[in-house]
Amino acid sequence: LIDTPCIKIDYQKLTANINRMQETCTKHNCNLRPHIKTHKSIEIARMQMKAGAIGITCAKVSEAEVMAAGGLTDIFIAYPLIGSAKIDRAIILAKRLNRLILAADSLAGAEALSREAVRHGLELELRLEIDSGAGRTGVTAQNAADLAEAISKLPNIRLTGLFTFRGVAANLEECTLLDQVKRTLSQRGIEIKDLSAGSTPTGLACAASGLLNEIRPGTYVFYDQSCLLQGACQADDIAARIIATVVSTPKPDYAVIDGGSKTFPMDVQLSNKSYAHVLGRDDLILDKLNEEHGMLRTSDGSPTGLKVGDVLELIPSHICPAVNLQNYIYIEEGGVIRRLPVDARGMVL
Amino acid sequence: LIDTPCIKIDYQKLTANINRMQETCTKHNCNLRPHIKTHKSIEIARMQMKAGAIGITCAKVSEAEVMAAGGLTDIFIAYPLIGSAKIDRAIILAKRLNRLILAADSLAGAEALSREAVRHGLELELRLEIDSGAGRTGVTAQNAADLAEAISKLPNIRLTGLFTFRGVAANLEECTLLDQVKRTLSQRGIEIKDLSAGSTPTGLACAASGLLNEIRPGTYVFYDQSCLLQGACQADDIAARIIATVVSTPKPDYAVIDGGSKTFPMDVQLSNKSYAHVLGRDDLILDKLNEEHGMLRTSDGSPTGLKVGDVLELIPSHICPAVNLQNYIYIEEGGVIRRLPVDARGMVL
Repeated sequence: LIDTPCIKIDYQKLTANINRMQETCTKHNCNLRPHIKTHKSIEIARMQMKAGAIGITCAKVSEAEVMAAGGLTDIFIAYPLIGSAKIDRAIILAKRLNRLILAADSLAGAEALSREAVRHGLELELRLEIDSGAGRTGVTAQNAADLAEAISKLPNIRLTGLFTFRGVAANLEECTLLDQVKRTLSQRGIEIKDLSAGSTPTGLACAASGLLNEIRPGTYVFYDQSCLLQGACQADDIAARIIATVVSTPKPDYAVIDGGSKTFPMDVQLSNKSYAHVLGRDDLILDKLNEEHGMLRTSDGSPTGLKVGDVLELIPSHICPAVNLQNYIYIEEGGVIRRLPVDARGMVL
Repeated sequence: LIDTPCIKIDYQKLTANINRMQETCTKHNCNLRPHIKTHKSIEIARMQMKAGAIGITCAKVSEAEVMAAGGLTDIFIAYPLIGSAKIDRAIILAKRLNRLILAADSLAGAEALSREAVRHGLELELRLEIDSGAGRTGVTAQNAADLAEAISKLPNIRLTGLFTFRGVAANLEECTLLDQVKRTLSQRGIEIKDLSAGSTPTGLACAASGLLNEIRPGTYVFYDQSCLLQGACQADDIAARIIATVVSTPKPDYAVIDGGSKTFPMDVQLSNKSYAHVLGRDDLILDKLNEEHGMLRTSDGSPTGLKVGDVLELIPSHICPAVNLQNYIYIEEGGVIRRLPVDARGMVL
């Protein structure tokens, strides 16, 4: 029915994952604004909205455009929007959506947004990104309040929120940091409405902390082997499988599957150096990938026992980039498999 | 004109690279069957054919379908074709193309092809893959002659060739190995017509060796930083650039560009652990990537000197997976930039 390599999603687990995260958020009175980077699918974004999400999060304006075309009307682009081409596209979106929230982490970035907002005669809603330890985008904690104050004075910019991404559990320091900056700003007469943090590993704790009013997890819809090893899910929660076929067994001690680096992302290695976990075969390691070749070996060098034509189910170390490599994913529900386009795949702009 | 991140190709360098490889092959009377995995573009495949290529090489039947739809008529799928879905698709292609060459590295694989060929009443042209040291697909050297002999007896299969992939320069051992197996088979009364090897790093030497009648380089159309470090090209030959914009400089010692692992492949690291080389900035290292974030730092920890909005040109460590991440590449010729679809992008089946 489906050919390999491909990604298969268990619909029941997907819906359970969506509902479980939403229920925790609802219980703690915290908004859920899931990041669509994991599924890049209009249909799954709509499922998340239907379950109770306040809106969605995208990384790029081109992703937001795809989601807007799919009927999503409340979108946060959680990435510094730099460059006139992207700002022009965001302004078109802002006119069309119920709510578009943009991001900045520098005065230069916020000023450019302000200039364009003035020129188009509209007001843009903005959140300031603060680094809580991930070491990527986000103004440093010590500069955050001053930058927020400067941004709050820019014309046609409404600074409504602070946000951060930590990614790993770290004693809620992402939440306490945002709360501190909010209090500092309040003392300076600037009221911040929305504090947003929380990834899949940290989301539930952030939602329960009472310090935030929004979390933005993404991976929780499918989960992956990294989530499992971080304790962010149970093995049974993982909704995604990469299905692959053994195409070659030149020697007993290794086998080649039909998915390589064009199928299995290489940005996260598991503790055993593997890029995926083979279901039912804890002894197998996938640690060598060419574009179309995945080399499977056993951890102790013993024969793999695999033969040409064997079909394997694997859980990737990181599901989000795996989905980005596919034009379609396959949803299995009650024995029926249907094909879902990865609508926002490859949207890098 | 073009927004970032994106891949820009210098048309003059592209044509020079295509012509130079072709001229060497023509001079040494060796056929050139370029692998389209690098560009995945119908237009560039046609440029290679026009320059004198005998046909093209694909890795997957879905890639071959895209190329066939683009008018390419002589295709070698250099990958063990396993599974009835793929064999069915290959047989449809075989009926339509002037020449389709399939691959096997196991008796099971060849037998399945033979069965379907008999059922459809056609003959399939086949090449046997032999491992010359890459340790992926390909029957071992010691088993090659016996397997070739067994395959040569299968009904409706015409075993016309042997092929291998070595990937790194290794004293022409890929060529001498194929030649040896061919001689052994000749002594057993089996005549092999085509010997095919040669990647971008080894292609010119293989073509000049006089031992083969076909090479299958791919990367040479664009080249990349790995090719340069392996001595497979000069810096001026590299036709591909990844253009990226600095979106964030939270601290002086690092800057974030708008391309991460969704833009820069992570399968090859340069000797300085970088995933790309920043043109004009030998001191910068790109060694930390999230999906949309690329963190640039200097090798000695000194300030990067970069500011938000700076546009950088980078040469990726490995261009082929970089192209697979893009829906379009941008061709620059005489100051004019046009958009080329990556036609066979994401064709994993």
